[in-house]
Amino acid sequence: MHRTHTCGELRIEDEGKQVILSGWVQRIRDKGGLIWVDLRDRYGITQLLLEEGRSNAPVIEAARALGREFVVKVNGKVIERLSKNPNMPTGDIEIDLESIEVLNKSKTPPFTIEDNTDGGDELRMKYRYLDLRRQPLRRNLELRNRLSIETRKYLDGEKFFEIETPYLIKSTPEGARDFVVPSRMNEGQFYALPQSPQTFKQLLMVAGYDRYYQLVKCFRDEDLRADRQPEFTQIDCEMAFVEQDDILNTFEGMIRYLFKTVKNMDIPKLPRMEYADAMKYYGSDKPDIRFGMKFVELNDLTKNKGFKIFDEAELVVGINAVGCAGYSRKQLDKLTDFVRKPQIGAKGLVYVKFNEDGSFKSSVDKFYSQEDLKTWADKFNSKPGDLMLVLSGEADKVRKQLSELRLEMGNRLGLRKPDVFAPLWVVDFPLLEWDEEGKRYHAMHHPFTSPKPEDIHLLDTKPGEVRANAYDLVINGVEIGGGSIRIHNGDLQKLMFKHLGFSEEEAQEQFGFLLNAFEYGAPPHGGIALGFDRLVALFGGSDSIRDYIAFPKNNSGRDVMIDSPSAISSEQLDELMLKVVK
Amino acid sequence: MHRTHTCGELRIEDEGKQVILSGWVQRIRDKGGLIWVDLRDRYGITQLLLEEGRSNAPVIEAARALGREFVVKVNGKVIERLSKNPNMPTGDIEIDLESIEVLNKSKTPPFTIEDNTDGGDELRMKYRYLDLRRQPLRRNLELRNRLSIETRKYLDGEKFFEIETPYLIKSTPEGARDFVVPSRMNEGQFYALPQSPQTFKQLLMVAGYDRYYQLVKCFRDEDLRADRQPEFTQIDCEMAFVEQDDILNTFEGMIRYLFKTVKNMDIPKLPRMEYADAMKYYGSDKPDIRFGMKFVELNDLTKNKGFKIFDEAELVVGINAVGCAGYSRKQLDKLTDFVRKPQIGAKGLVYVKFNEDGSFKSSVDKFYSQEDLKTWADKFNSKPGDLMLVLSGEADKVRKQLSELRLEMGNRLGLRKPDVFAPLWVVDFPLLEWDEEGKRYHAMHHPFTSPKPEDIHLLDTKPGEVRANAYDLVINGVEIGGGSIRIHNGDLQKLMFKHLGFSEEEAQEQFGFLLNAFEYGAPPHGGIALGFDRLVALFGGSDSIRDYIAFPKNNSGRDVMIDSPSAISSEQLDELMLKVVK
Repeated sequence: MHRTHTCGELRIEDEGKQVILSGWVQRIRDKGGLIWVDLRDRYGITQLLLEEGRSNAPVIEAARALGREFVVKVNGKVIERLSKNPNMPTGDIEIDLESIEVLNKSKTPPFTIEDNTDGGDELRMKYRYLDLRRQPLRRNLELRNRLSIETRKYLDGEKFFEIETPYLIKSTPEGARDFVVPSRMNEGQFYALPQSPQTFKQLLMVAGYDRYYQLVKCFRDEDLRADRQPEFTQIDCEMAFVEQDDILNTFEGMIRYLFKTVKNMDIPKLPRMEYADAMKYYGSDKPDIRFGMKFVELNDLTKNKGFKIFDEAELVVGINAVGCAGYSRKQLDKLTDFVRKPQIGAKGLVYVKFNEDGSFKSSVDKFYSQEDLKTWADKFNSKPGDLMLVLSGEADKVRKQLSELRLEMGNRLGLRKPDVFAPLWVVDFPLLEWDEEGKRYHAMHHPFTSPKPEDIHLLDTKPGEVRANAYDLVINGVEIGGGSIRIHNGDLQKLMFKHLGFSEEEAQEQFGFLLNAFEYGAPPHGGIALGFDRLVALFGGSDSIRDYIAFPKNNSGRDVMIDSPSAISSEQLDELMLKVVK
Repeated sequence: MHRTHTCGELRIEDEGKQVILSGWVQRIRDKGGLIWVDLRDRYGITQLLLEEGRSNAPVIEAARALGREFVVKVNGKVIERLSKNPNMPTGDIEIDLESIEVLNKSKTPPFTIEDNTDGGDELRMKYRYLDLRRQPLRRNLELRNRLSIETRKYLDGEKFFEIETPYLIKSTPEGARDFVVPSRMNEGQFYALPQSPQTFKQLLMVAGYDRYYQLVKCFRDEDLRADRQPEFTQIDCEMAFVEQDDILNTFEGMIRYLFKTVKNMDIPKLPRMEYADAMKYYGSDKPDIRFGMKFVELNDLTKNKGFKIFDEAELVVGINAVGCAGYSRKQLDKLTDFVRKPQIGAKGLVYVKFNEDGSFKSSVDKFYSQEDLKTWADKFNSKPGDLMLVLSGEADKVRKQLSELRLEMGNRLGLRKPDVFAPLWVVDFPLLEWDEEGKRYHAMHHPFTSPKPEDIHLLDTKPGEVRANAYDLVINGVEIGGGSIRIHNGDLQKLMFKHLGFSEEEAQEQFGFLLNAFEYGAPPHGGIALGFDRLVALFGGSDSIRDYIAFPKNNSGRDVMIDSPSAISSEQLDELMLKVVK
C-alpha cells in the first residue's frame, strides 16, 4: 500500500494515528537537531518531523539524503505541531517519522517548483510536466475540471444531450484555414479537422435531437497570437424550436449557474445591448461594462469654431475621466503617445481639464471659449476635477481608437478589477460585413445565420444595414461566445448564398449535404458556441489561456516538450502518396 | 413561442389544457370523417385529432395537405382519447386541433422513419440525419449520453480530474499507423493525431495529478473492419501511487455503478482470471463466461489407441455440449463445415454422442472403445444426452479453433443472452509477444508496461514467459478495455527498450521526453483505457458500434453523407508544401 491518507487530509482530529503518506519532497529544513520535510501531492502539503536522539538514526540519514522532488513513501505517527501554521489546512499537525522509502529519485529540476518560480517561459514549456506541479497551474486545471463538470451538469439538467461529432470531416474554403489530414485509403484525398461542429450540430437539429451540446476540440490553422492556440475547446450548443430569447435565457442561466456554483457569486440578469449601441457608446462589440466612461459625441458642439480638424472630422467623440483633472503635462503626453501608437493610429488627443475652481484648461483653448467648453462638460456630465479626452476622425476608426483609450483609462484608474464580473449580451449584429479586399460581403457570423425578418427587404438595396439574429456573450471586455438563430428555410438559405457571392454550384459543392438536409423538414433552430479556454481563464482571473491548458503550443504552433511537429518517414509519405516540395 | 409542451409529456391530468406543440408529422390517418396525425419529437409522439363538422374547415384542409416529416406547430386542447393506447406514455390523451402552421415542408424521405425502416445501409448512411430520426438510433445516442454522464459522475466522485490532452501531437512508428497533419507554419513537418493519450497521461502522473481521466477521441489509420472506426472514443484513465488491485477495484466499481445506474442491474464482484487459464479453458483472452462449456484436455486419454491424428497432435481438447446428443448427421456436418471454414482452419471435428441409454456413438469408434469413451465422458463431466466435440493439432491454433466452436455452440444453444452481462478481469498477460514477421518481440500491451517483479529475471533467458502487470476488462466475450501498471523506473524502462529492439538513440528519438520526465521523480502509476463505443453498444445489447455513433464512417473510412475525404485545392497543397504523387 502506497498511502493511507493523502498529503492534504490530516487534521488535529487524526492525532495519534499511524499513517503512510506518499508524495514529492517540496522542501527540507535541517536545523541540526531537527529536520522538517514538506511532503507534497495534488491534495496538499504535510510536514514531516525528525528529531535527533528521538527519531531512528537510519531514518534521519535517509532524510538527509533526500533531494527536492524525490518521490518517497513515509510511515509515522500524527502529532500536534508546536508552532502551528494557520495558512495550511494541515498546519496543525506534523508526522513523527518512523521510516522513509525512496520510490524514485529526481534530478534537480531546472527551475523551482514554487508559486513564484524562477523558470522562464521557454524552459517551463519544455519541462511542462514540472511546471504543472506548481500550485497555480494545478489550481487552474482543477478549475477547468470543475467548470466542465458544472457546465455538463447544467446542460444535462436542461435536457441537452451531449453528442460527439466527427473530427475527420471535410475541408471548406469559407472561414479560417483548415488543418487537413491525408487519407491513405482514399488516394490524394484529405479530411479536414473541424473549425467547429457547426454543420453537424445543425444536422442534429434536422435529425430531431432538440437540444445538443458538446465540449469539443476545434482546430484553426491561423497565424497565432498570444491568446490563440491551433487547437482550442468550445462549449458547443444548439436548440430547436426556439427563438433568440430562449437561447439567451438558457445560456445566461448557465453563466449565472457557473458563477454561483464555481465562484459562489450572484450575477444579476444579463443586460442586452444592441450592437449599434455598443459601437456608439463603447466603440467595441465587446464592451467592458465593469465601468462607465461611455462615449459622448460632440460634433454639434465643436463645429464652426475655427478648429479645422474637428470641423472636417466625421466624428468628434470623447470620454470623461473622473478625477483626472490633475494629470501632469507628462501624464497627458503619455496618453497622447498611447493613442498615437501605430496599432491604435490616432493623430492626436484633445484634452479638457475641468479644474476644481470651475475653470477649464484644454489643448484647444485657442479655438474654444470657457463657455464652449462648459457646453462640452455639460454633455459629458463632467464635474470639477474631471478630465475630458476627445478624439476625432473617420467614425469607425475613431471609435476603435477611443475604445482603446477608454480601456487604458480604465486600467489606470483601477476600474477593471479581475474579481468583478460584468457579463452582457450584445445583440442585433449586422448580418454582413464588407470585405474591402475581396470587394464583396462576407457573413459576419457564418452563412447560416438568419437575418431579422423585418430587415430582409434591405438585402438587395442596403445589405450592410441588414441585422442578424446574432448575439455575443461578452464578459469584462472579452468575447466569450457567440451564436445565432439559423436559417431553416432552403429558399432563404439560397438567397443568402447568392448575396455572399456563392454560385449555386459552389454552394452545392460545399454545403450540398446541409442544403439537402434542409429539404427534409428542418425545424427552426439556433445555437451558441462558447470559448471554453477563455471562460476558464476569465474565471481564474487571467487573460492568458495558455495557463489553463495542460499542454499548450507556443506561438509557432510547436509543442516544445514533445518536439512536434516533426518530420515523418519517407515510408509514411509514400503510403499517403505525398511529397514534400520545399 | 414554438411550444408549451413537448410531444412526450402530456398526460390525462392535462385534460382541458390549451397547448402548443411542435414536431414532425410521423403519420396521418384519414378515415373520412376523422383525421389523426401523429406528431413526433425527441421526447415522444402525441396524437392530434380532427373531426369533420366539428373542427375548423381550413384546419382540416391544412391537415390533409400535410406530408410525412413536415415540421408543424399546432394549437389545440388536450382531450381524453376514446380508445387509449397503453403502449404510449401519451396514449391516454389526444389534441383536439384548432390550428396548424407548417414551419417547414419535407420532401418524401428516401426511406421510412420507422423502427423497422425499409432503407438499406448505404442509403441510410447518406441520409444519416434522417436515419437518426428513428427511435432505435435516438435511444442509442441517448444511452451514449447517459453513460458518459454517469461515467464522469463516478470518476468525479472518485476524485479524478478530467484533463484535456492535445490532439496535434507527434508521430511514433511503434504501434498502429498514425493519421498525420501537415504543419503550414513548420515546413515539411507533421503533427500526428493521437492513437491514445498514453504518454500524456503518464506525464500527468509525473506532474502529480494523481488521478486523471478523459473521454477522448483517438485515431488509428488501420484497414477497417466492420467493428472498427478510424476515430473512436476512449474512457482514458491513470492513477498514481497505486498497485494493480487499486485499479481493478476502482474500475470494477465504475462498471458495476454504470450497470446499476443505467440498467438497474446488480453485477456481482468481478472474477479475475489469469491469462494462462483463459487460454487453457476458453482458448481466448476475452472469454465469454455467460456460459460454461470449459475446455477439457484429453491427450492422456487419447494417446496410443491407434488414432494417428490424436497421437501426433500437440493438443487434443474438447467441449461438452449439454443436451446435444440428438444432433443429426446434418447438424454434425454443419459443425464440421463451421470449424473447417478458412477463417477458423481446423482440419476436422471429432464428436462423441453420450446417448440417453448410456452408450456412446462417436466419429472415432474405430479407435476408441466404449470404455475409452467413458473415460472421456468422465473427464468432460458429460451426462447422457450430451455431445462431446473434440479438436486436435498445434496447441495455440487448436485453442483458437475450439474457442470459435464454443461460441458457435453457445449461440446455437441460446447461452449468449444479450440481456445477461458477465464481466471479468483477465490478468497476468504476457509482457512480450513474438513477432514472426519481424523476428523480434513486441510489447503485448505497450512499451511502458511493467513486468511482474518476480519475472524480471526471465527477461534474458525466457522473455516469452515474463508476465506483465497488465489486465483486460472483458464483458460477454468482448474486450472492453485494458491497462497496466507502468514502469516508473528509468533503468527498467531502458532495459525494456533494449528487449524490444530499440537502440538507445531510437528510444531517445521517440520517447525522449517521457524518459527525461522519468528522471524528475515519477511516481508508481498505472491506468486503463476503455473503448467507449463498444461499451455503449454492449449496454445497448448490440455488437455494432456504428449504430451508437452519430456520424460514423463506412468501411473505406468515408463519410458518405458529407462526401469526405475529398480533394483539396492546389492553393492549400502549395501552402502546405505538399504534392500528391499518384
